[in-house]
Amino acid sequence: MQRPLDVLGSSEGKRIIIKLKSGEEITGILKAFDSHINVWLDEADSKDSEKEVKLGRVLVRGDNIIFVSPAQ
Amino acid sequence: MQRPLDVLGSSEGKRIIIKLKSGEEITGILKAFDSHINVWLDEADSKDSEKEVKLGRVLVRGDNIIFVSPAQ
Amino acid sequence: MQRPLDVLGSSEGKRIIIKLKSGEEITGILKAFDSHINVWLDEADSKDSEKEVKLGRVLVRGDNIIFVSPAQ
Amino acid sequence: MQRPLDVLGSSEGKRIIIKLKSGEEITGILKAFDSHINVWLDEADSKDSEKEVKLGRVLVRGDNIIFVSPAQ
Amino acid sequence: MQRPLDVLGSSEGKRIIIKLKSGEEITGILKAFDSHINVWLDEADSKDSEKEVKLGRVLVRGDNIIFVSPAQ
Amino acid sequence: MQRPLDVLGSSEGKRIIIKLKSGEEITGILKAFDSHINVWLDEADSKDSEKEVKLGRVLVRGDNIIFVSPAQ
Amino acid sequence: MQRPLDVLGSSEGKRIIIKLKSGEEITGILKAFDSHINVWLDEADSKDSEKEVKLGRVLVRGDNIIFVSPAQ
Repeated sequence: MQRPLDVLGSSEGKRIIIKLKSGEEITGILKAFDSHINVWLDEADSKDSEKEVKLGRVLVRGDNIIFVSPAQ
Repeated sequence: MQRPLDVLGSSEGKRIIIKLKSGEEITGILKAFDSHINVWLDEADSKDSEKEVKLGRVLVRGDNIIFVSPAQ
Repeated sequence: MQRPLDVLGSSEGKRIIIKLKSGEEITGILKAFDSHINVWLDEADSKDSEKEVKLGRVLVRGDNIIFVSPAQ
Repeated sequence: MQRPLDVLGSSEGKRIIIKLKSGEEITGILKAFDSHINVWLDEADSKDSEKEVKLGRVLVRGDNIIFVSPAQ
Repeated sequence: MQRPLDVLGSSEGKRIIIKLKSGEEITGILKAFDSHINVWLDEADSKDSEKEVKLGRVLVRGDNIIFVSPAQ
Repeated sequence: MQRPLDVLGSSEGKRIIIKLKSGEEITGILKAFDSHINVWLDEADSKDSEKEVKLGRVLVRGDNIIFVSPAQ
Repeated sequence: MQRPLDVLGSSEGKRIIIKLKSGEEITGILKAFDSHINVWLDEADSKDSEKEVKLGRVLVRGDNIIFVSPAQ
């Protein structure tokens, strides 16, 4: 049987989209994650209804995350 | 005796509806889940009172979930 | 000495009412529960001040629950 | 040395008042409790600024509770 | 080296003030506490900006507490 | 390698400033702390946008804290 | 395989930006961190939409953090 975090394993090195509880979205190349869904992204940007900000490398703390999805 | 998460076990490969604390609903094909109710869905869409968004593959972090129900 | 979750044990197979932190109420036939008060209901409906929705089978994540009561 | 939950032990079989984070108060006969302060009450009623509701038997999830006090 | 909860140990049998996240203050004679800062008070009163209420004996769940201070 | 709580170890006996999630600031002489960042202060005062209050000895529950800084 | 907190390991001694759930941003030289993402910064400043404040040395409690990024 598969585990839900396997979906992240198959996205390593690829671009993902993270939807945060704050309403922001962060996209970037997935470099690493752990069981808390703490996520390290490279080439990341954040976006809310008002503006887009270039973040570069970023560590997102897992407890802020609603969902994670491979970028299409 | 059965355990409450067995309801998810019998929904694997089938479409479910997830109601989130944020008010959003996410539907998709259940691929995997764990004891935190972290959920991996395929062919997923999210919907709130304003709009519907195609998500495709998605990992929903369990602590955002109010309830999960098989799609009828 | 009894434990508080015994009240759920004696309600298995019977209709219960769950009051959620969101203000919603969910009623259904109790099929299973665990120590986090994750609850599996059959023949469930949700109700808030505006509308009533038929849910059928549903898994409610325990951390959303204020209280659980046998339906009278 | 005594422990704070001993105050509940000496209230078993007696009427207590529970103040919830939601602003509601629930009163009832204390039947059982555990270390999370999950509480089982019989002959319970809930009350907020607008209305009073007869609950009968109820299990209150501990994380909703601000304080518990013997009814005077 | 001392530990922060020692400040409570030296207040047993004395009046303390508890500031809650809800904005309320509760004062009373400290009878017992545990590592979660669950607190049992006797001769307690609660007070917010609008009113003061006599509580008598009370168990305050630790996760509601901002700070505890000996009454001066 | 150093650990982040070492910053508190080197502040024992000295005045620190604690910024709370509620918006309040508390200053006082650091007497003790633990791994949850529960903090015991002496000669403490609290301050928000409206008023300053003398607290004297106080135990601050760690989960309320945004950051701690040595007073400059 | 790398772990997400490795991104902090490679930033020790360098300036980072921390985005908090409160909306504030804190920047400073990373001195130490732990598995909860508690972070010790030197030469730190905090900034919100209204003002910038010099903090100097500061310990940020991890549960307030949305993300951490190396300053560019």
